[in-house]
Amino acid sequence: MLVISDSAEMQRQALAWRAEGRRIAVVPTMGALHEGHRSLIRIARARAERVIVTLFVNPTQFGPGEDFDRYPRCFERDRAMCEADGVDAVFAPSVAAMYAPDHSTWVEETTLSRGLCGASRPGHFRGVATVVVKLFMLTQPHLAVFGEKDAQQLRVVRRVVRDLNLPVEIVAAPTVREADGLAMSSRNAYLTPNERRQAVALRRALDEAERRFAAGEREAAALREAIAAMIRRLAPAATPDYIEIVDDETLEPIDTVDRPALVAIAVRFPSARLIDNTVLRPAGGAR
Amino acid sequence: MLVISDSAEMQRQALAWRAEGRRIAVVPTMGALHEGHRSLIRIARARAERVIVTLFVNPTQFGPGEDFDRYPRCFERDRAMCEADGVDAVFAPSVAAMYAPDHSTWVEETTLSRGLCGASRPGHFRGVATVVVKLFMLTQPHLAVFGEKDAQQLRVVRRVVRDLNLPVEIVAAPTVREADGLAMSSRNAYLTPNERRQAVALRRALDEAERRFAAGEREAAALREAIAAMIRRLAPAATPDYIEIVDDETLEPIDTVDRPALVAIAVRFPSARLIDNTVLRPAGGAR
Repeated sequence: MLVISDSAEMQRQALAWRAEGRRIAVVPTMGALHEGHRSLIRIARARAERVIVTLFVNPTQFGPGEDFDRYPRCFERDRAMCEADGVDAVFAPSVAAMYAPDHSTWVEETTLSRGLCGASRPGHFRGVATVVVKLFMLTQPHLAVFGEKDAQQLRVVRRVVRDLNLPVEIVAAPTVREADGLAMSSRNAYLTPNERRQAVALRRALDEAERRFAAGEREAAALREAIAAMIRRLAPAATPDYIEIVDDETLEPIDTVDRPALVAIAVRFPSARLIDNTVLRPAGGAR
Repeated sequence: MLVISDSAEMQRQALAWRAEGRRIAVVPTMGALHEGHRSLIRIARARAERVIVTLFVNPTQFGPGEDFDRYPRCFERDRAMCEADGVDAVFAPSVAAMYAPDHSTWVEETTLSRGLCGASRPGHFRGVATVVVKLFMLTQPHLAVFGEKDAQQLRVVRRVVRDLNLPVEIVAAPTVREADGLAMSSRNAYLTPNERRQAVALRRALDEAERRFAAGEREAAALREAIAAMIRRLAPAATPDYIEIVDDETLEPIDTVDRPALVAIAVRFPSARLIDNTVLRPAGGAR
């Protein structure tokens, strides 16, 4: 397995693979790999001849006061995991290798990025869109795998790819969960034992929304209130950041689930902010 | 020569050429081709196995009240010229083929774009940067040729390419001029006969600045005033939009020409806004 930290070297290697006709998949990560990432790597491995995993804690997607400095970094563990999973190249650049001191170009998605996490994390998706385009240019992938756990990110990336005509297929991978249902996330490591127990509330709240939806509930307000009640009950230490039901394509809030709807929630525990989501699909809906 | 209007078809063709190992050059234009464009095509032809000329009047780089609607469009003439010049493919998409109704992704360069034309044409370089990235993704070039006449555009494009890690070499082509020195531009066609006679003032003013610089003048204020005086004398119908002397790399205004400096001017005639520029290079300067 190649371990590359230089941007120009990564791009040369990727272009060389392209010139040999190899199909390339990239799995962009911030490292601190867990079973969720490994499922993305397995999908990439099954669909491409060369798999590149990028390990880069991207400073431009963190806001002031967010967890850029304390985000877990465990390169040796990540490297070993990639090697065990049959990855062809790990690209682990420094911040300086990715951003010139006078870096001044940004990729900004202006519609899907506005609500949900974009509202509470201004600039986050600008950082994500910019680094994803950069990583795509450096790794020249035919396809890239992103987790459904980061639902808004997935949709923003798809939009950027469409709008900028990037020749990259975006593959969505289902959320991988702990035994109790908590979505895997590198940030789960921040949780205290008590918060960790309460964190099951996110998935339980989504279960409750799915159950009510299956029973015929279509009013977004009622579904949101059921979610909020479950979080209040199971996670008294958490403060909801948002509980939203939006059109799955436009991410605009909807009142009635008469089309595929993304149910997205974010809650703040004292030690970590967690997100989770599900999609509700009415039978015979417009889409 | 291929004539392509569909974005997906252009990208398939470019990727097919890439897969065959062909070296691709692109010359992005807004059509209304003149000898300046033809010189770019010649440079591209000499350096690549496949030359693509894009003909696209990009709406997103025009401001409200600018000349998007009346910008000259003469596809048949452009097509014939490309064919005569040995171009392999003309890519001439419609606006709808380039921008989805819900297009929402922009590439924005935030430093070099601020002054000069960026100050009088807000949003212009965001439109340029966005469409250039899109055209590069659709034509997959190894190199792209841009004219030095659009000095700020050239520098913004180079910055975007560097910052987003686009694997494209940007080649600068010297400005091609009419017999009297007027820089060739599709917009020269807007000029009345009287304005056309006065338009020689831009290059004459730059000549005067070069002459004074060669004679030892290093004060930007004095050089700017010499330019303004020449424009007042030779082009009474024109109003200067800007007359600036800036660091050639950062495009920040400088007081003393002690390093390579871009002298950039823009003037408005009643019928057209024209630009021109030169670079002053002090011997033994810092760069």
